[in-house]
Amino acid sequence: MPPDIAIAPVIELSGVFVGALSGGLAAVRKQFDLFGILVLAWAAGLGGGLMRDLLIGATPPVGIADWRFIAVACLAGAVMYFFNPRLERARRMILVLDAGALALFAVSGTLKALELGLNGVAAVSAGIITGIGGGVLRDLLIGEVPVVLHQRQLYAVPAVVGAVLTAGLWAAGILTALTALGAVGVVFALRVAALRFRLQAPGPWVAGARTRKVGARRRNVSGRMER
Amino acid sequence: MPPDIAIAPVIELSGVFVGALSGGLAAVRKQFDLFGILVLAWAAGLGGGLMRDLLIGATPPVGIADWRFIAVACLAGAVMYFFNPRLERARRMILVLDAGALALFAVSGTLKALELGLNGVAAVSAGIITGIGGGVLRDLLIGEVPVVLHQRQLYAVPAVVGAVLTAGLWAAGILTALTALGAVGVVFALRVAALRFRLQAPGPWVAGARTRKVGARRRNVSGRMER
Amino acid sequence: MPPDIAIAPVIELSGVFVGALSGGLAAVRKQFDLFGILVLAWAAGLGGGLMRDLLIGATPPVGIADWRFIAVACLAGAVMYFFNPRLERARRMILVLDAGALALFAVSGTLKALELGLNGVAAVSAGIITGIGGGVLRDLLIGEVPVVLHQRQLYAVPAVVGAVLTAGLWAAGILTALTALGAVGVVFALRVAALRFRLQAPGPWVAGARTRKVGARRRNVSGRMER
Repeated sequence: MPPDIAIAPVIELSGVFVGALSGGLAAVRKQFDLFGILVLAWAAGLGGGLMRDLLIGATPPVGIADWRFIAVACLAGAVMYFFNPRLERARRMILVLDAGALALFAVSGTLKALELGLNGVAAVSAGIITGIGGGVLRDLLIGEVPVVLHQRQLYAVPAVVGAVLTAGLWAAGILTALTALGAVGVVFALRVAALRFRLQAPGPWVAGARTRKVGARRRNVSGRMER
Repeated sequence: MPPDIAIAPVIELSGVFVGALSGGLAAVRKQFDLFGILVLAWAAGLGGGLMRDLLIGATPPVGIADWRFIAVACLAGAVMYFFNPRLERARRMILVLDAGALALFAVSGTLKALELGLNGVAAVSAGIITGIGGGVLRDLLIGEVPVVLHQRQLYAVPAVVGAVLTAGLWAAGILTALTALGAVGVVFALRVAALRFRLQAPGPWVAGARTRKVGARRRNVSGRMER
Repeated sequence: MPPDIAIAPVIELSGVFVGALSGGLAAVRKQFDLFGILVLAWAAGLGGGLMRDLLIGATPPVGIADWRFIAVACLAGAVMYFFNPRLERARRMILVLDAGALALFAVSGTLKALELGLNGVAAVSAGIITGIGGGVLRDLLIGEVPVVLHQRQLYAVPAVVGAVLTAGLWAAGILTALTALGAVGVVFALRVAALRFRLQAPGPWVAGARTRKVGARRRNVSGRMER
């Protein structure tokens, strides 16, 4: 049963804004120029949706065809350009922004694929890719290994949970504006809890390598922070 | 009003050739083998058009389906393989080649999207992506941060100007072979002027950071040159 | 003349499994967590087919819509997570796995494009991209220059041979399960022979640089091994 159709764009635009903020911030930290900042805001804010639209065959993607999405991403880039937060504050901020975008995108991406009539597996995949795609593109463009891969703190799991939850609510016929926002909240809470309590996905399974794993974890966290 | 339809392929093939030269050159400088050189020539020459075709839904893209485009890219790669310019000369040459490809692609990419009936925003986006996409793919494949992002000299701006100009000429019904070439000339002149006179896009807005910005600029230029 | 239609999925699933093993192994070596390992297994196993499906317009790609493909890739990732081979053994293993996936993908990718009615050039391109795409995506995601580009040992050539061979067999009307497997065998043999006998693609053509090239070769091989 299709939900109130107006939810998706609003959720998605919010996700674009916070995602683009994280992209603009990454660019500022790399000392990119104004246009590099705008491009990175665009990539981080709209990259996930762009990949989703390519994968589900919805061309041209809203990321290049809908001026509102582009304007919101550029606005976020400009805000980051002028606001230019001190790097100390940014360490925490980029992670929280990322969590917000992750939650909004995972739910809205799944929703859009379902509305287009894709099967559950494809819709969940689309939701996960929408959630993590922008951050992956952002990190590749600044020459870093994507956070989603090398950070131990749970990142992909909340996206998976959000996509499955959304598909489940849809299948159960109870996906409304309220329950969709609830799913967004669950993903965000999961991700923030993972950050706050350092919940970790298990690392490579090496017998007798406990000491090394702890060391690797510490290095990962600080490595990300110092860059 | 559609222009003389034969313009687009000729402009695009020229762009493929010079773009592919820049890709082949980058591969030679990285000591890649013959096939690495051909792949990079292909990526730099056809990558922008490939991204455009995926985004506007024109599959299969000419970059994989039209033997003339592939042949021109491979020819450029082979030329670079045998010509093998000394690295000293290459510093300047890669930038000028890039400027030519940027100009040709920005105009032809916008044109193709308009011919397929996309709206102005999508056509301008497609033109910009066609212009900068090949260079971005080239730089990602050789493991560098894309030039378009980290170099201060104006790069994206000429592409934006060219795409908007082309869409404007189209909307005004005066897009002909001559005016299209004029648009190409404007983009090329803008980019070369930016290189020659070191016109810069503004960097991150940091109060009291003037000294650091000058240093960063010098490092950027020489950093690119020495690699 | 279309072959027994059931070949393609079986060949492709086998390719997904060995490709995903190489991705999982690369992730284990980079000390990624369980989910990073699964994502990289997915990317290496399904990335080539995903690019192919996007390029030939077969959306949504099997890589996101067919649960069997996703399950096989995740299974391979899990196997690599628990099996966790010692790094010494892995040096050789990753190269042989890569050879198997290359062979299976080059043939199945060409086949799928031909079955969808694309022209020969596009089908051969699709086969090559299916063959090398997963490995390229894997290497980009772990922050390395793709093996296919910087390694001198023949890598792209077997993929090209396999794609051309498959298209030729198809055109001659003699593409059956047996001849398709024969093509897979030829590609695998070529690639393994290239590894075993250090067959090399020619490097950049520099007069009087023989000494340097030998040095570069040695560095390439060990550079790959040590990482």
